[in-house]
Amino acid sequence: MNERVSELKLHFRVIGTIHSPFRDRVGMPVQPVGATDVQGHIEMASDVAEGLLDIEGFSHLTLIYCLHQVRQAELIVTPFMDSQAHGIFATRSPARPNPIGLSVVRLLARVGNRLDIANVDILDGTPLLDLKPYVPEFDSYPEAPRIGWFEKARGQATTHRADDRFL
Amino acid sequence: MNERVSELKLHFRVIGTIHSPFRDRVGMPVQPVGATDVQGHIEMASDVAEGLLDIEGFSHLTLIYCLHQVRQAELIVTPFMDSQAHGIFATRSPARPNPIGLSVVRLLARVGNRLDIANVDILDGTPLLDLKPYVPEFDSYPEAPRIGWFEKARGQATTHRADDRFL
Repeated sequence: MNERVSELKLHFRVIGTIHSPFRDRVGMPVQPVGATDVQGHIEMASDVAEGLLDIEGFSHLTLIYCLHQVRQAELIVTPFMDSQAHGIFATRSPARPNPIGLSVVRLLARVGNRLDIANVDILDGTPLLDLKPYVPEFDSYPEAPRIGWFEKARGQATTHRADDRFL
Repeated sequence: MNERVSELKLHFRVIGTIHSPFRDRVGMPVQPVGATDVQGHIEMASDVAEGLLDIEGFSHLTLIYCLHQVRQAELIVTPFMDSQAHGIFATRSPARPNPIGLSVVRLLARVGNRLDIANVDILDGTPLLDLKPYVPEFDSYPEAPRIGWFEKARGQATTHRADDRFL
């Protein structure tokens, strides 16, 4: 790749704030499957709230957000669910070159510019970058045949909690 | 939301470039399910390529990228697969307040800092923001019960092509 390209900076705005019971990263669930009983809400910025029209029709949303408390990227990490090191892009660990998080949550209700959500594995106060309707035809590959090192961690995400390794 | 929050700018870097046969947005598939025979590759920036360690173990990747040719956001859009208007966040249309795209692709092979991929519905030259391993336990909700207006468009994404409405 042209090295000039990798120096390009891309600028995004905050379109909303995600609120949750999690004020501390330590002890948090590591994926939405470990947070099925956790509710929170999204407060959309008033100037983009019009873009929520018809969102009520969807049961699940994909949230793309900024992992705003990550201070430093690491290229090789030992993720929460393994004792071996892997490349950051082969994990879901937060210490990514671009600290972008991705979670599929359930949409419970919309009240004006507020979206009540469940399955929230996200820190309180997290800046939202985008939200998209979850459509199984586009997003669901239930039988993706190979899941790398997660194979031996299967099922752990429901019980595993974050510790302080990426603080 | 505190209006100051919505004025915050977040800065990300380009971590790689996505290459595909699509040099023109008009006529492109609108989702990976319409591009199952389309191959492309990702060229990772050399300074983050180390983070690909063990990526070969995964059959599917989630790509988060910049929809770099989108010039202007629209809050109400008529998406490619419908004749009715919806809020931008209830669609997958590109003209989003933050032009961020999301596609699940198949990983065919890794050769150094190059990832060969299939199911590519992405424009040639697209800047990559993040890539994550696709893990069905985290990402797959095959029976998400409500899919809004997509219900009547079900199946169309395999054949529908983009037109010039968001140029």
